Amino acid sequence: MATARPAPDRSLTDVPVLEKLDGLLLRQLAARMGAAPLRYALGRLTVDPPAGPPVATLRFQDRRALLGLLLDPEVRFGDAYAEGRIEVEGDLVAALEQAYRTLPEGRANPLAWLRTFRRHSPPRSRANVHHHYDLGNDFYTLWLDEQLLYTCAYFESPEQSLEQAQVAKMDHVCRKLGLQPGETVVEAGCGWGALALHMARAYGVRVRAYNLSREQVAWARDRSRREGLADRVEFVLDDYRAIRDRCDVFVSVGMLEHVGRRSYRELGRVISRSLDPERGRGLLHFIGRDRARPLNAWIRRRIFPGAYAPALAEVERRVLWPERLVTVDVENLRPHYALTLRHWRERYERAAAEGRVGRDERFRRTWRLYLAGSEASFRTGSLQLFQVLFAPTRSSGVPWTRRELYAPGPGLSWNAPTS
Amino acid sequence: MATARPAPDRSLTDVPVLEKLDGLLLRQLAARMGAAPLRYALGRLTVDPPAGPPVATLRFQDRRALLGLLLDPEVRFGDAYAEGRIEVEGDLVAALEQAYRTLPEGRANPLAWLRTFRRHSPPRSRANVHHHYDLGNDFYTLWLDEQLLYTCAYFESPEQSLEQAQVAKMDHVCRKLGLQPGETVVEAGCGWGALALHMARAYGVRVRAYNLSREQVAWARDRSRREGLADRVEFVLDDYRAIRDRCDVFVSVGMLEHVGRRSYRELGRVISRSLDPERGRGLLHFIGRDRARPLNAWIRRRIFPGAYAPALAEVERRVLWPERLVTVDVENLRPHYALTLRHWRERYERAAAEGRVGRDERFRRTWRLYLAGSEASFRTGSLQLFQVLFAPTRSSGVPWTRRELYAPGPGLSWNAPTS
Repeated sequence: MATARPAPDRSLTDVPVLEKLDGLLLRQLAARMGAAPLRYALGRLTVDPPAGPPVATLRFQDRRALLGLLLDPEVRFGDAYAEGRIEVEGDLVAALEQAYRTLPEGRANPLAWLRTFRRHSPPRSRANVHHHYDLGNDFYTLWLDEQLLYTCAYFESPEQSLEQAQVAKMDHVCRKLGLQPGETVVEAGCGWGALALHMARAYGVRVRAYNLSREQVAWARDRSRREGLADRVEFVLDDYRAIRDRCDVFVSVGMLEHVGRRSYRELGRVISRSLDPERGRGLLHFIGRDRARPLNAWIRRRIFPGAYAPALAEVERRVLWPERLVTVDVENLRPHYALTLRHWRERYERAAAEGRVGRDERFRRTWRLYLAGSEASFRTGSLQLFQVLFAPTRSSGVPWTRRELYAPGPGLSWNAPTS
Repeated sequence: MATARPAPDRSLTDVPVLEKLDGLLLRQLAARMGAAPLRYALGRLTVDPPAGPPVATLRFQDRRALLGLLLDPEVRFGDAYAEGRIEVEGDLVAALEQAYRTLPEGRANPLAWLRTFRRHSPPRSRANVHHHYDLGNDFYTLWLDEQLLYTCAYFESPEQSLEQAQVAKMDHVCRKLGLQPGETVVEAGCGWGALALHMARAYGVRVRAYNLSREQVAWARDRSRREGLADRVEFVLDDYRAIRDRCDVFVSVGMLEHVGRRSYRELGRVISRSLDPERGRGLLHFIGRDRARPLNAWIRRRIFPGAYAPALAEVERRVLWPERLVTVDVENLRPHYALTLRHWRERYERAAAEGRVGRDERFRRTWRLYLAGSEASFRTGSLQLFQVLFAPTRSSGVPWTRRELYAPGPGLSWNAPTS
């Protein structure tokens, strides 16, 4: 009785029939990726792109990683990359950019759609914020600018440093809003407080700034005391829904992504009841899209639970229109976020190479992929960055032109008569 | 047998009981107008505003005009004014502005809503256009600028002349689009052709410009021949739906108001199939609102049949998003349209005073009210003017900043890399 059995010292992947299967899967993946100039590799097998040299190689450490990618590319790619079961040899951003450009954005998973309508109760919002923003200020200090701005910068020219561009962003926002000394500002979602402090220091306004992250608020209060601004800036550890202030200016930079679509109407109500109907104006700065789509599933699962990047139409329709807040100006800063992310990633990689990003390898690779993938998303147009400037429809003064934004001085003038 | 009958030579309005009724109606009107500083008068009766001096007096020539205003203010006021049965003594624009500010914008008539979804077939569009734009070029020459631009101007400063501001508007549009010599432009709804000719002359582009108005196209072709631009600008007497060109730039100034909401998706498809996916960009300039509302009923009936001023959200949602065209920049020029209309009205009144506006008194009063009412609408925020700049989401070059728009040179650069 002769039964053919593999020699006990040969691993499964060495069996030719499985190698055939691997080849099949690799070619299947290559077919899905169409013209993307990527090479795919597993063991000693490689599949080259249909034309031209590859910008990078996707190397699979095992068949499971390859299979996973074919079954559920969004989540499985991220997890397999984080676990080191997929390696990208070559330029990670360029590889992701090619993938994003090539892959048809299929229909979104209906469950993912449903989830975007999930209610963001204050406790859930707090949990979501805690997941991301309370990773420890030390961690963010490694790769953000010195003032810890964790939102898109504004590079007056691409050569500016990240530090300069973050200050330029704050000034761009303040000058769009035409802040006048003595005015009152409410900021919803203030991060580590840089903008609130900048507004008080450089524009002479009084600010109440809201944030759900305990670590960030502690940091911001400490800084505000050190800089002698505590009498003009109040940091409130609370939800934006708790805002009851009356103000001249409402500003929110990088919070809308976490508000949840079901709460857009409520955000609009909060803005509307805060703003002075005659002199009031506001600005929303947020990651958006060209149309409604759930955010990448892996990002939602591993990085930003509950996050959603809205289409401009959704913000117009749900936040502003029901409250008769009218858009005065919209600027799309997409290329600026790509460049901001490149700066962050370079600093992050430097810190990682120097062993300063603690935690385990999986964490380090997760954040590498998140930063690289975000940069690729802004480069390809999967994500956009909108700044929307608005005012109550019947308010009196609308800026005459935007010229003052690009000239010395305090920026737009909101006090001119309407004609 | 003594029956009390009024003496046959006394008219009805002299009968005290009817005078009592008139007083009742006048007070009813005054109550509806709340705090608006207006005086109401019929015969020898007057009702003063609750506080302060009136900015104007609404004088009713007969009871029917007053009753009509109470029953159906939008349409009846316009018609009664046109027929001279209501006279506004004092500043007409200020009076209308006060009325717009005071009157709660009630729920829109459901029928009016339905009508905004009416299909704009090409023949209907042609009829609508004919109603307004084929009143005779001579008529428009009386009160538009010398190049006959019948859309919102852009006043670099409020002191500019209308002529200067219309040239500045054309340059503002061209510079937002960053026109480069040799590029191809499609213009949908070109009026008397001023923008198309300006683009070809000052920016060296080739233009195909579409319009449904026979009189306007004849005028534009004639001008183009006289100015030696006929080889670079082609005026096409056709509907925007007939556009089959491929182009670098799609521009439409003041046409969207006439497209009809049901055709927004189709307009989006036309834009999308026209634009080069890599280099393409476009601009829509249109009268809009802070939220969806049918246009004033009298304007729809007497001035612009089929017209609709959309909310920004509607244009985003129906024209741009389905085609993955993403907004790069939005500017609200509301105060500029108020000032444009003031210039038009002053010229119009001068021409009317000199007996140069032919036709009958009803026509002259209709147009006076239309121009004054439009100015008041832009002053109060009932109407807005949006310029929306957009590009295919995946196009390569997005302008880095808007600074170039406010500096010498050709305007925004669309060829820079995304980061």
